[in-house]
Amino acid sequence: MTGAYTELRKHLREAGALGSVSALLSWDQETYMPSGGSNGRAEQRAIIATLVHERRTSPRVGDLIASCEGIASLTEDDRANVREMRRDFDLLTKLPASLVGEIASTSTRAMEAWKDARQRSDFAIFRPHLERMIELARQKAACYGTPSGGEPYDALLEEYEPGARAAELERVFTPLASELSALIARVNATGKTEKLAVRPPAIPASRQHEFGLFLLKSMGFDMDRGRLDTTAHPFCEGLGPGDTRLTTRYKEDEFGGAMYGTLHEMGHGLYEQGLPKGDRYGEPLGEAISLGIHESQSRMWENLVGRSRSFWQWAQPHASRMLDPWFGAQKVETLYAMSNVVRPSFIRVEADEATYNLHILLRFTLERALVKGDLSVAELPGAWNALFERLLGMPVPDDRRGCLQDVHWSCALIGYFPTYSLGNLYAAQFFESARVAMPDLDTRFANGDFGALLGWLREGIHRHGRRFRAGELCERLTGRKLDSQPLLRYLRGKAAEVYGV
Amino acid sequence: MTGAYTELRKHLREAGALGSVSALLSWDQETYMPSGGSNGRAEQRAIIATLVHERRTSPRVGDLIASCEGIASLTEDDRANVREMRRDFDLLTKLPASLVGEIASTSTRAMEAWKDARQRSDFAIFRPHLERMIELARQKAACYGTPSGGEPYDALLEEYEPGARAAELERVFTPLASELSALIARVNATGKTEKLAVRPPAIPASRQHEFGLFLLKSMGFDMDRGRLDTTAHPFCEGLGPGDTRLTTRYKEDEFGGAMYGTLHEMGHGLYEQGLPKGDRYGEPLGEAISLGIHESQSRMWENLVGRSRSFWQWAQPHASRMLDPWFGAQKVETLYAMSNVVRPSFIRVEADEATYNLHILLRFTLERALVKGDLSVAELPGAWNALFERLLGMPVPDDRRGCLQDVHWSCALIGYFPTYSLGNLYAAQFFESARVAMPDLDTRFANGDFGALLGWLREGIHRHGRRFRAGELCERLTGRKLDSQPLLRYLRGKAAEVYGV
Repeated sequence: MTGAYTELRKHLREAGALGSVSALLSWDQETYMPSGGSNGRAEQRAIIATLVHERRTSPRVGDLIASCEGIASLTEDDRANVREMRRDFDLLTKLPASLVGEIASTSTRAMEAWKDARQRSDFAIFRPHLERMIELARQKAACYGTPSGGEPYDALLEEYEPGARAAELERVFTPLASELSALIARVNATGKTEKLAVRPPAIPASRQHEFGLFLLKSMGFDMDRGRLDTTAHPFCEGLGPGDTRLTTRYKEDEFGGAMYGTLHEMGHGLYEQGLPKGDRYGEPLGEAISLGIHESQSRMWENLVGRSRSFWQWAQPHASRMLDPWFGAQKVETLYAMSNVVRPSFIRVEADEATYNLHILLRFTLERALVKGDLSVAELPGAWNALFERLLGMPVPDDRRGCLQDVHWSCALIGYFPTYSLGNLYAAQFFESARVAMPDLDTRFANGDFGALLGWLREGIHRHGRRFRAGELCERLTGRKLDSQPLLRYLRGKAAEVYGV
Repeated sequence: MTGAYTELRKHLREAGALGSVSALLSWDQETYMPSGGSNGRAEQRAIIATLVHERRTSPRVGDLIASCEGIASLTEDDRANVREMRRDFDLLTKLPASLVGEIASTSTRAMEAWKDARQRSDFAIFRPHLERMIELARQKAACYGTPSGGEPYDALLEEYEPGARAAELERVFTPLASELSALIARVNATGKTEKLAVRPPAIPASRQHEFGLFLLKSMGFDMDRGRLDTTAHPFCEGLGPGDTRLTTRYKEDEFGGAMYGTLHEMGHGLYEQGLPKGDRYGEPLGEAISLGIHESQSRMWENLVGRSRSFWQWAQPHASRMLDPWFGAQKVETLYAMSNVVRPSFIRVEADEATYNLHILLRFTLERALVKGDLSVAELPGAWNALFERLLGMPVPDDRRGCLQDVHWSCALIGYFPTYSLGNLYAAQFFESARVAMPDLDTRFANGDFGALLGWLREGIHRHGRRFRAGELCERLTGRKLDSQPLLRYLRGKAAEVYGV
């Protein structure tokens, strides 16, 4: 009977290798491919995507999984592996090809319409496309099936955050939002932001790149098993065992964009490098748990480490030497405050650490209501503007800076937004536990020792792959369910130190 | 019936796209892949190679080709396309998988043994492996079948130079070798080489790279459809429509290695960019004719253009500005002579334009005799040394600098060497015809106009893909069969100008 398990692993390992090929095609397209290669690349990607899909959904895989579910002698790890294989197979085979095709073609048109609508700030252009996308999302949810006691939106969450439920997210997000709104209002009332938001002089991209490489090496990213390149939009791409690639972008007059972008992608990359891909390539036990857990790793290194006082205590002389002597001439408190200013703004991707979660709560609330049918697409701009003002205290000037700003809905990513805030929440909760386990973490950071934290993440999260679901992992690691208090305590603590509120 | 042709084209186009994926995996491995990715990459490459082979050899392809051979309404182009599809299919399906596997595994071991043997200069270590490789080559030739009136070696040539025959090569190579040997002896007797071989000062790699890009753009290589990167061993890789990648390597104290390496790979790249890959991706009409014709393009730009006086008349001020003012301080004659010194040496890959062909004739003669059975592997070192001394006038000091220097035989590349000299011969013969068609070619080069030559190559060679075989193309383009005289005239002319002999 274990012959079936061996065959299944081999089959999925090949699908995993083809998935890595797909990742390389994509990475290369963003980094080094000449523009003339784009048509050929589209053909290449389509063929590989079809091959990956065929391999992962072939009836033989279904038969093998069924056989493996009957093998009593499997270890606990291997049973978890088979459990997750079943989940993937069911999710992939539940959607009829006709619906997948219709979502893809609708999405192509919707993206074009969205670009046009955003540019003109004219929601009417996008409205019929979004109506169709919401209808298709409901059909998709119906194919997946609503989890018992849940709602159709839960089925959509499954693609990105297995096991997440909207009601549970609401339980965590609601107190987070109301307390954050209040905190941000107190911070704003101090009027200190402009004074705190100092800027270093312009720094050449080459120096920023060297400094980025220095940070990666200092924090434990293995450059023999990874790279750092430059792209229009930063990302991290795992290309298989021993090959994890990060990208960032440089603006000479805004070093923080590249530095925190690099630390963010590094967080994703450290997770990828810590997964047991050698043995478990292509199998659930070699893969990341969810987008939320992945994001918790990127946010932890970007924010909880990279925006800490102890980070700057360590980094200041290096930044002074490698970026600009300006850094050496500042007080550590100035660098710490500069990295932690809070400034409500209209655009999510430009939001700071505190306001960011309100942008997400807004989207989660609205897309959930759209799927449920409590909100019509026609009502969306009004609902957006009202909720935005309630959460962030500013009236939205136009739809371009309102409900038309994100690409996600046009490309069928409905149920995706919550994973961003889940990342922040998990990061803060994990970090509190890490501090309990290692009370000297700040001293370590200040001395340039990031290995203890990385070791703790490797041991507690990375090495397990998808052995546990996100909620289960959280309880194992922190002793409690996901909760808004750790993130709130963390953000309140910073506001107290930086703004004195 | 044309439904079969449409299906066949679609099928091969997919195989072509998978072939491009394979090329990207290989390009990336040589350029940017971190060392830790090598195991995963080997898995990815093996899977894609299997998929390409399956697609190109599936019984369905055979059936479709047979159907297409019966379609009377095909155009002449399409009939040529089907003719070459048949050739490829037969070649790929004639070898049993067991033989392919044995060649691969023997080759892996033979390469290890060869590395060891070369390092120790001990032929005995390599001998049993080479004996096995020759035996397997004979088996391969038997599977392919000897062309009528030919010899088994001809069957091996088919893989690299379709339609080439050993007896025909001998007819061209033999007078070339004897006249070249005499020419080289006359040149040597002048004792002028050391004086002519001047060297510019060391030039930073970044400047050499900028100058390389400048040459590529000036000569018509489309950078929107290609790239130039740095690797340990220079190569050109066609990655599909609109994506042709060149690599080179830089040594600060030897600018010529990078510059001529870049021009060489550019010649390959211009051919790739000129093939009709948009319409004919994956089909013979979108592919290069043979290795010999490919090499004729690289050698033409590297040598017939790049080592000409008119090239230096144009390039001198640019080299002075971009590389080093030293270039501006020289006479054009000095730069011209420096690029054309003739200096017999033991190592093929370091050989100059004139002596290079003798290295090839040597290998062709010996490998042909090995396959025929006229020479035993045990006799190879002695035969090599005797023939080398006869051709190049120097005794071979050891096997490391003799019959152990090349990797080819260890990795089953038997019948490959002649394509290098075919490239030189075709290049010279084509170039003579180009001069007839465009008598002002030198004036054009001196003015930085390389477009007329490129246009002539595009029209006469590139756009046809594999419409003609190499010999047929040569007769169409030059009015005569391949002949040693154009190359001899060209090399004699240079020797007269540079050495006064």
